[in-house]
Amino acid sequence: MTVIKQINVEDLENIARGAAFLGTGGGGDPLIGMLLAKQAITEFGPVKVMQVDDLDDDAKIFSSAMFGAPSIMLEKGAGGDDIALAVTVLEEKLRCKADAILPMEMGGINSMIPIVAAARLGLPILDADGMGRAFPELHMVTFTIGGIPATPLSMTNEHLETFVVETNSSQKAEQFARVIATENGASACISAYPMNGKQVKEYAVKGTLSLAMGIGCAIESGRRESSPVENLLSYLRTTPYYNQCKVLFDGKVIDIKREVTNGWSIGHCHLEAINGDQPQFEIMFQNEYLVARQNNIVRAIVPDLICTIDRETAEPIPAERLKYGQRIKVIGTSAAPIMRTQAALNIFGPKAFGIEDEFVPIENIK
Amino acid sequence: MTVIKQINVEDLENIARGAAFLGTGGGGDPLIGMLLAKQAITEFGPVKVMQVDDLDDDAKIFSSAMFGAPSIMLEKGAGGDDIALAVTVLEEKLRCKADAILPMEMGGINSMIPIVAAARLGLPILDADGMGRAFPELHMVTFTIGGIPATPLSMTNEHLETFVVETNSSQKAEQFARVIATENGASACISAYPMNGKQVKEYAVKGTLSLAMGIGCAIESGRRESSPVENLLSYLRTTPYYNQCKVLFDGKVIDIKREVTNGWSIGHCHLEAINGDQPQFEIMFQNEYLVARQNNIVRAIVPDLICTIDRETAEPIPAERLKYGQRIKVIGTSAAPIMRTQAALNIFGPKAFGIEDEFVPIENIK
Repeated sequence: MTVIKQINVEDLENIARGAAFLGTGGGGDPLIGMLLAKQAITEFGPVKVMQVDDLDDDAKIFSSAMFGAPSIMLEKGAGGDDIALAVTVLEEKLRCKADAILPMEMGGINSMIPIVAAARLGLPILDADGMGRAFPELHMVTFTIGGIPATPLSMTNEHLETFVVETNSSQKAEQFARVIATENGASACISAYPMNGKQVKEYAVKGTLSLAMGIGCAIESGRRESSPVENLLSYLRTTPYYNQCKVLFDGKVIDIKREVTNGWSIGHCHLEAINGDQPQFEIMFQNEYLVARQNNIVRAIVPDLICTIDRETAEPIPAERLKYGQRIKVIGTSAAPIMRTQAALNIFGPKAFGIEDEFVPIENIK
Repeated sequence: MTVIKQINVEDLENIARGAAFLGTGGGGDPLIGMLLAKQAITEFGPVKVMQVDDLDDDAKIFSSAMFGAPSIMLEKGAGGDDIALAVTVLEEKLRCKADAILPMEMGGINSMIPIVAAARLGLPILDADGMGRAFPELHMVTFTIGGIPATPLSMTNEHLETFVVETNSSQKAEQFARVIATENGASACISAYPMNGKQVKEYAVKGTLSLAMGIGCAIESGRRESSPVENLLSYLRTTPYYNQCKVLFDGKVIDIKREVTNGWSIGHCHLEAINGDQPQFEIMFQNEYLVARQNNIVRAIVPDLICTIDRETAEPIPAERLKYGQRIKVIGTSAAPIMRTQAALNIFGPKAFGIEDEFVPIENIK
């Protein structure tokens, strides 16, 4: 596994592609984020990548993310100033300066936003995040396992209007942030879960920026050898978290239902094998893919990752881009061990999404 | 006109009664606020009242108010800690200590909330406010005439959760505060329009705490002489702002329509003369009474004050307490001169409420 030391403009495409894979169908399209990151690095220089284990225990760590409905983020975007401002507002609130920027989620657009923050603020970015994938709600991060409060949380919009929320409950932080973001057009920049180095070392999912980059590179280099899917799977097997991986299904989309409800994209997708000789396959999602079933039997379930990719190019395809007739492969992979503990499952296991099935690790499913 | 120097527990009832009159049908029932103020003064001692003209130009002035739907405030209330906390959060944000507490509106419950804040924080309260009455929206204050921004604005709830909003637009501050308050159950404590002494001297409506007290006392002492309505009118004629006053109608409620829409209580009330020998009288309201008409002719219009009182006891009756068959007198009075300028009318004149009639001072209406 290659560890990246610095993010240059030419790295962004592969990080974004890997993060689209880790977005597990959600997380928001990284395109706009990538353009912002490209501009920020061009203007302010490459971003230094720092390993979590190199942090001082008392280092001040500030996160950076977009918050809202992924489909809106794609259209509304952010300016860049607003991304950095979310960090600055929280620094002011806490009366201390950030030592490094921590991605909250390495899936989708939120792989790019912290790069923008780091570049603009001249800070290193940490090679880590709070889940090693994407999740739809603010409190669905490993930091919650450690009882680390989501707030004070800062939020900013493209007019550089700012908001600060403080509450003892991470669920309520999600709820308040949601209504304020909705009033801001369903998309805003945030900084939340301010932490010290010790907390980040204990609870972050480490190495995920390098992993996103590795996934993106594996797909890209696989294309040159006309074996992107195989190359992707080979790479995943070398990683510390995603090594239990398999092609869950290979087929075409025969039904897709999406509803935007309470700011989430909720729905399901039905797939049929290309030659029609297998039972239908179904994926349910709330922004991200939550559970994949075949013949009513669970094939993979949250927090393990379910990802849809183009069956030829291995390009990750988010749920909002799925369409009738599309030929895709569904990949299932294991989540990081910290994501599979009982404490973690209480926060973002199947029940947190109203799914009655118990979590079963993908390697234990035939 | 008597100027009060200090607020003791025994003063609260008359201030609250006067503020209910100045609430012009809205402003929220002062009862819960009065109980909180009583408790705060009992625990922390009487509140010193300060005149605006005694302020240093660079004094730091923080306002205090409840924000939300008046009918909810009556049921949900506030704890007291949350009222003081709104000021403290804004002090922290601005990194300075308050020298005095300024009421935002002297109508209804918001006459009492700043007394609670002042008592708990050991600060003087200013004998002034931002309108000398009540209004439904955050930016409808004389401070807006001076271009003084509504934010940074702090908001707190009974769980001591806190919010800080910053925007350049007072209308947007209203809009953001409204959704956050709504998520807090449609009632929250705020501190907004932080100002220096010079700004308060220039734009506040002065002496309104003493005026509320004077109105309450006039009604109370009038009752001992069995002439509360006459006594109230006599007192109003001695005041600097409310001196143009008259009984607009004397009759009974024959129709009352109220709808809670977007957190406001919107509706109208129809009145008939006791002996039935006059054309019907109609009052329209959005929390507060906005316009009174008879025979489709305007008798009084916002920002002048329209108030409903019991025709025997002169007890002010808010719009939410009006009921069929109730016998009331409708009093119209002039607003403070600063409230009647063109700049003021742009903010809270008839058009701001979607009323097509032009503002005509009550003294110019036959």
